[in-house]
Amino acid sequence: MAEVRLGIIGIGGMGSAHAMNVANGLVPRMRLAAVADIRRERLDWAREKLPSGVSAYDDGRALIDSGECDAVLIATPHYFHPEFVIYALEHGVHAITEKPAGVYTKQVREMNEAAKRSDRVFAIMLNQRTNCTYRKLREMIRSGELGAMKRVNWIITDWYRTQSYYDAAGWKATWDGEGGGVLLNQCPHQLDLLQWLCGMPVRVRAFCHEAKWHDIEVDDDVTAYMEFEGGATGVFVTTTGDAPGTNRLELTFEMGKIVCEDGKLVFDRLKVNEREFCRTEKNGFAKPDMERLEIETDGQNEQHVGVLKAFTGRILDGTPLVAEGTEGINGLALSNAMYLSSWLGKPVDLPVDEELFLRELNRRRKLSRKKEDKGIVFDTAGTY
Amino acid sequence: MAEVRLGIIGIGGMGSAHAMNVANGLVPRMRLAAVADIRRERLDWAREKLPSGVSAYDDGRALIDSGECDAVLIATPHYFHPEFVIYALEHGVHAITEKPAGVYTKQVREMNEAAKRSDRVFAIMLNQRTNCTYRKLREMIRSGELGAMKRVNWIITDWYRTQSYYDAAGWKATWDGEGGGVLLNQCPHQLDLLQWLCGMPVRVRAFCHEAKWHDIEVDDDVTAYMEFEGGATGVFVTTTGDAPGTNRLELTFEMGKIVCEDGKLVFDRLKVNEREFCRTEKNGFAKPDMERLEIETDGQNEQHVGVLKAFTGRILDGTPLVAEGTEGINGLALSNAMYLSSWLGKPVDLPVDEELFLRELNRRRKLSRKKEDKGIVFDTAGTY
Repeated sequence: MAEVRLGIIGIGGMGSAHAMNVANGLVPRMRLAAVADIRRERLDWAREKLPSGVSAYDDGRALIDSGECDAVLIATPHYFHPEFVIYALEHGVHAITEKPAGVYTKQVREMNEAAKRSDRVFAIMLNQRTNCTYRKLREMIRSGELGAMKRVNWIITDWYRTQSYYDAAGWKATWDGEGGGVLLNQCPHQLDLLQWLCGMPVRVRAFCHEAKWHDIEVDDDVTAYMEFEGGATGVFVTTTGDAPGTNRLELTFEMGKIVCEDGKLVFDRLKVNEREFCRTEKNGFAKPDMERLEIETDGQNEQHVGVLKAFTGRILDGTPLVAEGTEGINGLALSNAMYLSSWLGKPVDLPVDEELFLRELNRRRKLSRKKEDKGIVFDTAGTY
Repeated sequence: MAEVRLGIIGIGGMGSAHAMNVANGLVPRMRLAAVADIRRERLDWAREKLPSGVSAYDDGRALIDSGECDAVLIATPHYFHPEFVIYALEHGVHAITEKPAGVYTKQVREMNEAAKRSDRVFAIMLNQRTNCTYRKLREMIRSGELGAMKRVNWIITDWYRTQSYYDAAGWKATWDGEGGGVLLNQCPHQLDLLQWLCGMPVRVRAFCHEAKWHDIEVDDDVTAYMEFEGGATGVFVTTTGDAPGTNRLELTFEMGKIVCEDGKLVFDRLKVNEREFCRTEKNGFAKPDMERLEIETDGQNEQHVGVLKAFTGRILDGTPLVAEGTEGINGLALSNAMYLSSWLGKPVDLPVDEELFLRELNRRRKLSRKKEDKGIVFDTAGTY
C-alpha cells in the first residue's frame, strides 16, 4: 500500500477543516477518498468544495462498508466517537477519532477493548501533543533532572465563546447532545497534556458551574483541585466566559519552577534540591540560589497535520503515533471525575465509579432540552 | 501633644525591626519610649541596641501602666494581640497591633467591641495596603470602570521558609503557640488585600496541608476555592515550601483582565463589556477587541513606616489610618474559614460559626506538642 485512503465521518467545523487539509495535500501519502454526514447541507458543501473524486455518504457505516477507505477519521458529536471507531476496527478499517475519546469512560473502555482485539491502527487527535513546548516540558520532566513534582497550576481560560457559538448547532452544550461543556469540548487537550506531563491525579474536587456565562445546559466555568500520588497538588481553572483569557501552566519541582505561557518555557533552576536546602540551611529566611533559563525547543508544532502524518506513518511503516487511541481515556477520566465531584459536592478518588458517573450523566440527559439546529458551521481555523 | 511616645510589646523579629525604625527617626513625631518582652535576652538586646532613654519592661501590662507611652505597638505571638490591645485601650493608650488581628474571630470581635467603647486610636499593621500597586488596583475597581468581577486567582507561593525558621522559636508553627501556619502567619496581608480589593467571599472550600514540607504541626501548603456574592469565583494558593515561589494576582472583570506581578499592573482593557459582546456578537469564535495597558501608579510604597506615620497622624491630627484596627477581622475570618473548611472536609459559608471554629482549634491546641525555644531571632528585613 503506497497511500492511505481516508474517509471522514462528520464534516462539521473540525471534520471539514481536516478534509481541506488532506484534500490540499498537506498530509503526504494520505488521500481523501470519502466523507460522510447525516446533514444534507454538509454533503452539498462537500460536493462543492472537495475534489470531484471524493465520495459522499449520508451514513458513516456505509462509508466504512464501502471498501473505499483504508482508514477513517471520526469527527461526529462526541457520543458517537466510540461506536464509529469500534465499527471501523471491527470491519478492518484503521481509525482515528477526534477528541474527546467519548463522553463517559465506560463507553471508551469498550472502544479500547475493541482496539486491543483488532490488528488495525487506532489513534486520537490529541494534536497539542505535537506542540514543541509541551514536548520539551515532558522530556525535561521524564529525564529526572527536575526531581519530584510539588505543584501544578494551569489557568486555561482562553477558550472564549460567544452565545452564538452555542446556538449554532442543536447538539451543542446539551447533556444529551454533547454530554458536557468546557471540560468535555474545549479542555480535552489540556486534560490530556496534564496527565501526559504530570501523571493522573488520585483525587479531585471540582466546582463546575453550568450556564454561568451562556444560555446553555452544561458547564462553562470550572475550578478543580487535584492531588497526585507523590503528594503534589494542582489547580485547573477553565472557562469559555473570560475575555481576554489566560493560558498559563506553572509547575513546581524540587529543582525549581517552570512557567509555560505565551509559547515560552521559563525555567527557574535551583542550584540545589529544595528539599535538601530546607533541611540543612541555617538561615530561616534564606532561599536556594537559582538561575533563570528560557528553554529552547525544536520549534516544531505540526498540530492536526502532524497527527495525520504520524497516523499515516503508523499504517504504512509502523512508526510511532502522536497519541495511541487508547490513551484518550485518561483525559476523559479526568473530566468525568471533575463532573462527578461537582455533582456529588465532594472529592472523588480516581479511577471514578464508572457506573455511578453514567447514572448521574443519564439523569441529566433525560432532563435535557431539545434545541433548534441552526446548522451554522463556523470556520475553526486557529481556535483549537 | 507634639509627639507620640511609643511602647513596643514583643521585640522579636518584627518588634525589634519596628523599634529600630522608630529609634532611627524614620517616623516623624513618634518617639520610642519603651519596649517590653518576657525574654531576658531580648531585653539585653534592647539595652545594647536602643537609645539609652528607652525603658525596658519584662511585662507588657507594666509598660502600659507606666504612663511613659501614649501608644503601644503589639508584636507578641498572635494569641496575645487582642488581650494587649484591649488592655491598652481600656487604660487610655492608643494601640496598633501587628497582623494577624488574633487567632480566632471570636477573640478579635471582643477586641473590636472594646475599641468601639474606647476613644483611643486602634490600628493594625496591614502595611501591604501602602503598596502603590494594590492601592491603584483598588482605586480602579472601586471607580466602576472595570464592571463586575468575574474571577480572581492569587498564586502567592513566595513565602519560602527553611526548617530552621520554624525551629527558632518554641511558639512557632504549633497550634497552641501560634495557632496556625502559612495562612495565619504569612498570608494575613494577602487575605486582607483580597477582601479589600474583592470584598469578602460568601463561601470557601480549602485544602490545608499540615507539615507537608516542614517538621511542624500547622499548615505549610494551602489551596482554597472561593465564591463571591456576585457569582465571581476565586483561587488562593499559598505555601512556605516552594522555591522559587510566585506572587501573581490575576483578576478578571467584565471590562477585561488585570495581572499584578513583579510590581507591574498590566490591564488588558476591552473596548466593550464582555457580557454585552457575548450576547450580541454573531461569530461564535470572535473575541472582544482589547488594548494592553501598563498601569502607572504613584510609586509610593512606605510599608511599615507609612503605617506608623499614619498612626501618628491619626493620634495627633485626626487624619486617616492605613487600616482601622477593626478591619483586621476580615482577613482573619477568611483564614478561619479556610481552616474550618479543611478540618471539616467541606465548603463553609461566611461568616463562619465562631464557636465551632474555636472548638476545633482548641482540640488541636490540646494535642499540641511543646517545642524547645532556641531563642533565635532572624533579621526580617525584606521578608514581609
